[in-house]
Amino acid sequence: MSLSIKDEDVDIVIAALRPDLSIFLEGWRVFLSRFHLIIVKDPDLKEDLKIPSGFNYNLYTKSDMDQIIGAASSSLSFSGYSCRYFGFLISRKKYIVALDDDCVPARDDKGQLVDPVAQHISNLCTPATPFFFNTLYDPYRDGAEFVRGYPFSLRNGVECALSCGLWLNVADYDAPTQLVKPRERNSRYVDAVLTVPVGAMMPVSGINIGFNRELVGPAMFPGFRLPGEGKNRWETMEDLWCGLCAKVVCDHLGLGLKTGLPYVWRDKDEGSDPLQSLKREWVGVKLIEEVVPFFRSVRLPRTAVTVEQCVIEIAGLVKDQLGQVDPVFERAANAMVEWITLWKNVTSKAI
Amino acid sequence: MSLSIKDEDVDIVIAALRPDLSIFLEGWRVFLSRFHLIIVKDPDLKEDLKIPSGFNYNLYTKSDMDQIIGAASSSLSFSGYSCRYFGFLISRKKYIVALDDDCVPARDDKGQLVDPVAQHISNLCTPATPFFFNTLYDPYRDGAEFVRGYPFSLRNGVECALSCGLWLNVADYDAPTQLVKPRERNSRYVDAVLTVPVGAMMPVSGINIGFNRELVGPAMFPGFRLPGEGKNRWETMEDLWCGLCAKVVCDHLGLGLKTGLPYVWRDKDEGSDPLQSLKREWVGVKLIEEVVPFFRSVRLPRTAVTVEQCVIEIAGLVKDQLGQVDPVFERAANAMVEWITLWKNVTSKAI
Repeated sequence: MSLSIKDEDVDIVIAALRPDLSIFLEGWRVFLSRFHLIIVKDPDLKEDLKIPSGFNYNLYTKSDMDQIIGAASSSLSFSGYSCRYFGFLISRKKYIVALDDDCVPARDDKGQLVDPVAQHISNLCTPATPFFFNTLYDPYRDGAEFVRGYPFSLRNGVECALSCGLWLNVADYDAPTQLVKPRERNSRYVDAVLTVPVGAMMPVSGINIGFNRELVGPAMFPGFRLPGEGKNRWETMEDLWCGLCAKVVCDHLGLGLKTGLPYVWRDKDEGSDPLQSLKREWVGVKLIEEVVPFFRSVRLPRTAVTVEQCVIEIAGLVKDQLGQVDPVFERAANAMVEWITLWKNVTSKAI
Repeated sequence: MSLSIKDEDVDIVIAALRPDLSIFLEGWRVFLSRFHLIIVKDPDLKEDLKIPSGFNYNLYTKSDMDQIIGAASSSLSFSGYSCRYFGFLISRKKYIVALDDDCVPARDDKGQLVDPVAQHISNLCTPATPFFFNTLYDPYRDGAEFVRGYPFSLRNGVECALSCGLWLNVADYDAPTQLVKPRERNSRYVDAVLTVPVGAMMPVSGINIGFNRELVGPAMFPGFRLPGEGKNRWETMEDLWCGLCAKVVCDHLGLGLKTGLPYVWRDKDEGSDPLQSLKREWVGVKLIEEVVPFFRSVRLPRTAVTVEQCVIEIAGLVKDQLGQVDPVFERAANAMVEWITLWKNVTSKAI
């Protein structure tokens, strides 16, 4: 890998929501077999996992969660897509790349297979530029530069903590959009990476992300769980909540978040039904109207200088400002506090 | 043209810094011949202009400027690249597209010639989304949508006032970058349009822009003139200053600014010498370090509800906060006030 990052510095975290990981892992073998994988089995999944040979992995299941978390937690849940966060917690590596198990490699606009790990690591290892927007996108990519008018004092940028990749074919729409445009596919390969400016909020999708665990690990948590949340992406909001928290923390601590490349190819889940999902997700579509203005308004005190302190501060604001709106927010605030306790506990025990 | 915009609603403004416009206009004939052109001759240019036949245009020269501005102005200057602003002032159309005279049509990633007018108008006629970042870029482009987590209440967006296009081949670098990387060319065609989020500042380049004159016309002015400013783009800052003002105004009034497509192809000006330019531009490279933090901090009072009022407010802040740093800022503030007087004067006389 370029940029003098060692393969041993990277964990690939896979949330196994379906028992057969063969198609998924065979599809990714060329890019993932050199890395250590953390496979986390959805605790709701009864069947044994089918994992092809030739991968270096650790598998974590419900019994590992019970053992580490014990009876301490009442608000935290690792079921469904949230099981991946157990992998974030248990990893000891500097970099995490996480991919949903319904994705396969995409091809770029020249027909070449895209290596998402290399691209995420490249995004994370080169500076981010949140304080002034560069019109030619990420100035740290090969062949790119800062354009006229970019202050030289800002060109060093800041450390990039989070890299959010995108999706070709089945895009990451919500249930209503999925229902209204069932055949819509994303076919536009946009050859760009950009830093999301400081203060700007965005919907972080958990489908295809990379992050620097040392910089923002404690902000990558399963805090927000919708009542009746299902096993389709369009029914979930855990990643959106987590992403908004992470963005607020990055902005406060002077860290960067990039979005754009790498793309993955998302296959349609033929068994899913957006109409059923919509019934379940309606509350999510409603709650996002509260969530986004809240996060756009959050300002953290100067005394919050670590990610853990920032998350605790945000949890307090959630309780105060959103707690009355819906019980889901009270639970989220509690989960965030519990997560930080758990994170400190688990990481302090690590060698 | 799509989007039910009439050709008569558009003026193409061309700043003529070189006498022979043949190559430029022949290159653009296929896209520009159906529109009305406003050609503004750099008042420093002595030779007669060579303009090929078959275009519908009005030509404005120094004598028109003298007649309209009269002896009233002492700080405003329309020389060099700033002559284009006279075209913005004199136009009666809703939409302006302005292209530098060293550009020719670019080809997209499929080899098709790019129509910059159609793309600018499309950017301007579809809503902008400055209050939340959409990871799949402009959701109003064909085949694009809002991603999961985008609040439905924000999906109507706001009116787009300014569209900033980009450049293939010779990118818009400053003199030091031009000197350090004389052979660097931009070959990456990024197939994206995006709204720059509210609060985020950016370097607007005047090379290839479109704007809604009814929405932000008074904010498109030649306020900032470097001492010893030359006739190469890398020596100028007029467009950067104007763009920062326009962005502050858009943010304050709830309007949007998009960047990305369309691309134009920029040819190298073989006669130019970045080393000579660097000597002249050094003061610009220094001043931008004052300019960007200033504009990032500007907050306008609620009482400023028109573009004209916003520009006057910014001029006051420039005088107060930057006036002591360098005389160039005092002159800029005066020019902004004079511009607003001139704008009101000229537009009130219009039929």
